[in-house]
Amino acid sequence: MAGNSFGKLFKLTTFGESHGKAIGGIIDGCPAGLDVDLDKIQNELNRRKPGQSAIVTQRKEPDTVEFLSGVFEGRTTGTPIGFIIQNANQKSKDYSHIKDTYRPSHADYTYDEKYGVRDYRGGGRSSARETACRVVAGALAKQLLKNIEFNAFTASVGEIALDKPNEELDFSLIESNAVRCPDKATAEEMEAYIKEIRSQGDTVGGTVRCVIRNVPKGLGEPVFDKLHAELGKAMLSINAVKGFEYGSGFEGTRMKGSVHNDLFNEDGTTKTNLSGGIQGGISNGMDIYFNVAFKPVATIMQKQQTINSKGETVEMRGKGRHDPCVVPRAVPIVEAMAALVIADFMLQNKTSKI
Amino acid sequence: MAGNSFGKLFKLTTFGESHGKAIGGIIDGCPAGLDVDLDKIQNELNRRKPGQSAIVTQRKEPDTVEFLSGVFEGRTTGTPIGFIIQNANQKSKDYSHIKDTYRPSHADYTYDEKYGVRDYRGGGRSSARETACRVVAGALAKQLLKNIEFNAFTASVGEIALDKPNEELDFSLIESNAVRCPDKATAEEMEAYIKEIRSQGDTVGGTVRCVIRNVPKGLGEPVFDKLHAELGKAMLSINAVKGFEYGSGFEGTRMKGSVHNDLFNEDGTTKTNLSGGIQGGISNGMDIYFNVAFKPVATIMQKQQTINSKGETVEMRGKGRHDPCVVPRAVPIVEAMAALVIADFMLQNKTSKI
Amino acid sequence: MAGNSFGKLFKLTTFGESHGKAIGGIIDGCPAGLDVDLDKIQNELNRRKPGQSAIVTQRKEPDTVEFLSGVFEGRTTGTPIGFIIQNANQKSKDYSHIKDTYRPSHADYTYDEKYGVRDYRGGGRSSARETACRVVAGALAKQLLKNIEFNAFTASVGEIALDKPNEELDFSLIESNAVRCPDKATAEEMEAYIKEIRSQGDTVGGTVRCVIRNVPKGLGEPVFDKLHAELGKAMLSINAVKGFEYGSGFEGTRMKGSVHNDLFNEDGTTKTNLSGGIQGGISNGMDIYFNVAFKPVATIMQKQQTINSKGETVEMRGKGRHDPCVVPRAVPIVEAMAALVIADFMLQNKTSKI
Amino acid sequence: MAGNSFGKLFKLTTFGESHGKAIGGIIDGCPAGLDVDLDKIQNELNRRKPGQSAIVTQRKEPDTVEFLSGVFEGRTTGTPIGFIIQNANQKSKDYSHIKDTYRPSHADYTYDEKYGVRDYRGGGRSSARETACRVVAGALAKQLLKNIEFNAFTASVGEIALDKPNEELDFSLIESNAVRCPDKATAEEMEAYIKEIRSQGDTVGGTVRCVIRNVPKGLGEPVFDKLHAELGKAMLSINAVKGFEYGSGFEGTRMKGSVHNDLFNEDGTTKTNLSGGIQGGISNGMDIYFNVAFKPVATIMQKQQTINSKGETVEMRGKGRHDPCVVPRAVPIVEAMAALVIADFMLQNKTSKI
Repeated sequence: MAGNSFGKLFKLTTFGESHGKAIGGIIDGCPAGLDVDLDKIQNELNRRKPGQSAIVTQRKEPDTVEFLSGVFEGRTTGTPIGFIIQNANQKSKDYSHIKDTYRPSHADYTYDEKYGVRDYRGGGRSSARETACRVVAGALAKQLLKNIEFNAFTASVGEIALDKPNEELDFSLIESNAVRCPDKATAEEMEAYIKEIRSQGDTVGGTVRCVIRNVPKGLGEPVFDKLHAELGKAMLSINAVKGFEYGSGFEGTRMKGSVHNDLFNEDGTTKTNLSGGIQGGISNGMDIYFNVAFKPVATIMQKQQTINSKGETVEMRGKGRHDPCVVPRAVPIVEAMAALVIADFMLQNKTSKI
Repeated sequence: MAGNSFGKLFKLTTFGESHGKAIGGIIDGCPAGLDVDLDKIQNELNRRKPGQSAIVTQRKEPDTVEFLSGVFEGRTTGTPIGFIIQNANQKSKDYSHIKDTYRPSHADYTYDEKYGVRDYRGGGRSSARETACRVVAGALAKQLLKNIEFNAFTASVGEIALDKPNEELDFSLIESNAVRCPDKATAEEMEAYIKEIRSQGDTVGGTVRCVIRNVPKGLGEPVFDKLHAELGKAMLSINAVKGFEYGSGFEGTRMKGSVHNDLFNEDGTTKTNLSGGIQGGISNGMDIYFNVAFKPVATIMQKQQTINSKGETVEMRGKGRHDPCVVPRAVPIVEAMAALVIADFMLQNKTSKI
Repeated sequence: MAGNSFGKLFKLTTFGESHGKAIGGIIDGCPAGLDVDLDKIQNELNRRKPGQSAIVTQRKEPDTVEFLSGVFEGRTTGTPIGFIIQNANQKSKDYSHIKDTYRPSHADYTYDEKYGVRDYRGGGRSSARETACRVVAGALAKQLLKNIEFNAFTASVGEIALDKPNEELDFSLIESNAVRCPDKATAEEMEAYIKEIRSQGDTVGGTVRCVIRNVPKGLGEPVFDKLHAELGKAMLSINAVKGFEYGSGFEGTRMKGSVHNDLFNEDGTTKTNLSGGIQGGISNGMDIYFNVAFKPVATIMQKQQTINSKGETVEMRGKGRHDPCVVPRAVPIVEAMAALVIADFMLQNKTSKI
Repeated sequence: MAGNSFGKLFKLTTFGESHGKAIGGIIDGCPAGLDVDLDKIQNELNRRKPGQSAIVTQRKEPDTVEFLSGVFEGRTTGTPIGFIIQNANQKSKDYSHIKDTYRPSHADYTYDEKYGVRDYRGGGRSSARETACRVVAGALAKQLLKNIEFNAFTASVGEIALDKPNEELDFSLIESNAVRCPDKATAEEMEAYIKEIRSQGDTVGGTVRCVIRNVPKGLGEPVFDKLHAELGKAMLSINAVKGFEYGSGFEGTRMKGSVHNDLFNEDGTTKTNLSGGIQGGISNGMDIYFNVAFKPVATIMQKQQTINSKGETVEMRGKGRHDPCVVPRAVPIVEAMAALVIADFMLQNKTSKI
């Protein structure tokens, strides 16, 4: 059914295939009167775009967002904000090799099972290219949420993990390296590892951590729409994500209550923050933090056996230029989705009391 | 805002506080013509109810579900199914000690921040008692999904983890022990550990694993409403959940693509199943499996420092009878939520092709 | 699909058949902190209930609403408000004569076509009994909307029409007569006519007019969710309604723009109000008024030819006690639905500006 | 809040202001596998566009729709269908005279009250230009609903009304005249009257009737989402609409039940059709028909007194080229909205039975 929308009050609907004319979206529900900095939005999009560094895909796509409505004389008007991003050079690619062949661990087979038809070029709708639209909307959400800081970064690549607690990290370093890790030494190690993996024609997974600061108390709805449940859904909706945990996460399952409970200070803050800034599904004003697991990219530059649409075994090898590790480019996407969730709850929360 | 509903086409809306007159719900969108076995529904509810074994809370609540509409002469009519579960003895409890005191890592503080008022008795709306309504709806969803098997079980309690792969487990053993672990030796170890923890007045976390078999291909929507994203949201909306992973999950982040990719057999099945039965957000017909992380129960029978609503430090100790580990009773809740998600996508999928 | 809910932020979901155990509903999204006067809610319900006067059905149903959640110590808590109304004596009725027979201009035939099954007793879900739940929710909405006045009244019964403009009516007279018409002479004429119609075993239609005063400016959403579009849907969803018009309505189609335009006063009010208080789908602060057309009740106490479920011609005659004219009892339902629409837009409007 | 979407399963979301860069929309939920005839869609758009005849506005706008996604090799893929319509020459217009002035019976004042800001050029979002997007989506819906016929036509202009019953009309004549009335003599009379009104610098209202044939039985949801309630909302959401009635409509309020009831034939059809093809909110297979009331266009070419945003009295006169009567161009919009409603219920209905 109609499933290309995210959010209830601050709502993004996206469209577009990897190799169609354009991708784009509609942001509906952004309050009127917000001064919009279009350059900042483009800047977020640039953080996601291909070809930005030596460790990501070398495809060239300008990824320029064009706003068509909803912003007048630099301010939002309360009406829907339509935007498009043209797909450059989409005709030049040759995708005939996957027209009838199902790439392992891709969505080719399941799309065909579901719809009986698919736009096979570049993954069509299942391509992560769709996330560019999320970054646009998330960047706008950030502007609405002026004082809230979204700090996502690469926390691990394969076995190489950042082993410092959030409090010891300097988030201003995130953009200082191609891998987007706020620790120089670890970043270098990760970067070297990604290059090595790429030279093998292989790919590798990793995790993104996100720390959100200055979230007001009271966001999130108590039962089904808990704040962390929506954050989880948001993150799990990003291509290649396999898991989500917040606060103490899976580690917390091994703890005792006497250790895990966050005791209060008299001002309502807590001495520890294993809750991850959320209690009973509602923000308590402490930092919100969570981890997102990304699997290794399925397209590898090695020969693999697979099947075609007739059920015959065939051999294939990835073509074109793909990311050896999706994590560095996923960082702005994680931030964008987090901002969409928080913006939506900010608006929802305006109606919680008389 | 209105956030007490789950599902789009097979939709559950719940109401009720722990110590109000009754809890209940409305299941809207169940197709007409389904023969309903009310005993089976009550049976699922019994799997969740307090007092069922030596390792869960010893409260006595009959938890009898009463259907008020939507089922006529044993069959669904397509109209909404209203049901209630009376709250027994709710007036006898004494909750004055938490009226103005915020229990650590509970929702007391955040509810007050959000609403400016709360029904403090037994946690009110934030009580896991609400999940009884989910079990009712999930049990009905299971009946709609006749051939699909939902097998949830306790996979770990604290550090004690079931270390067998899914294929080696005999799911018929799940209900043979109080802890709901399909391995006799591990179950005994877990049970002993829970008793020990309880004797310390402490609590402990754990994980539930769920394996869903015979899911048709093609379920799930490609972008925001990916099958695993909805499963993740569903699980994260259960009280005390801190994380969700499916297929290879967090472990998969450490793998290379060449190892992680699931190669096809000619019949469309895959040789491995690190994808967890879902590719591109859509089911591929393989087993769906995932893990859910539960934190230790926040109410412990030890003295803790906390604050009251005036911001003064006070001391408190848990009263009443609480679960030392939430995991055994969470098993049917996990199954129920999974069934709700699958039922919804089954209905949604009827409109994916002309 | 799931279609038993109304509203987005102030949301009512109802359940229940005419002769099931109970009908009821869940009001989700009512802000926390509202002092609730339960007697006033019951009073609204009494305005709708059968047996209240000589010109309505003489069935006896106490129609007592019981609140199960969401109100604590007299105030809303922000959590869902569940309520039920028991169906009294529902087992004593004999509906075997319509088990397999389709009453003309009723929903019997279409329900069977849609669902393949129906609870035939008393119309089941298609019974106007369901509207009792709307009155409960609407009465709560009115309490949320303290300063807004909802004045619905009978504007015509058959050919007998109230011919005074709204400004000349004294709304305090509405409840002074059984027909709910704010003009003594017309009310008496209508009442006599309804009695005459009943004595013929016949029924008659009529219209309800509603005037809403003190609506804040700015309610309504500009495109699909225009204020009058939602009011129209709300009214058209009431049993037996055939039409809706607001402001100048159908009469306005015969006017010229130079006559129809409402010229402004300097304070933003308008000299005339053919717009009916809504311009471009958004309230302008003037009185909102509209008419709702009700067809004659389909159940008549005369012999009629019809068919049974085998497609055979059969003869039938209405049994039991039915309303000869639905309009007097529809008045509180119209008000309730109007209040639900306005309450929802009041909440929505909190997010229109930053 | 986010209110620019229509439909649940076949869902249209639109964006765009009259004088922005482009208007457009996303159609989400169209099933995969539909062969799309793009020319037919453009043709519907041409029926709505300005400058098409002597009795509509003489503005020149090419109104060419460009599809950006969701259609591959001529067929829908099940993914969202994004489209845009460029706004031609939008920069050349001079709207400074309404920048700070509120046109009577327009949305200028209410938009300012609601949002505190508006794109005043050409009415911005409140312009009926937005309905072009509805026509695009409706034209696609018609292709999905192959066998269902949508016949909308002008039934009255001012006092001039078509006085034939639906059965006596030849719908093939609708497009044979500029006013879109399926009766030659009446059409000529209407056309002459519109020209006369225009020569006076005035405008006039009218009604559109729509007859839908071959609608399957069983469409519509029983309580809030009745088929006619959604049709009513759809029509009332069109600019300038003041009323909606279906079947016997307001006329039916003056009838007795013994006359109004539609008696059955043995095949389930009815001898009369005062129900308008809908009983209990659900289609019964008979023709669906309804009337839509349009007020006179508010922009007149005469001098009017009004106020500016400072609350000062000013004089204004309409500029530019406007429709003297909106009805002829509204015909395809009415059909489009009807098609959207029916398409949505067709999809919804796939889940009503097991």
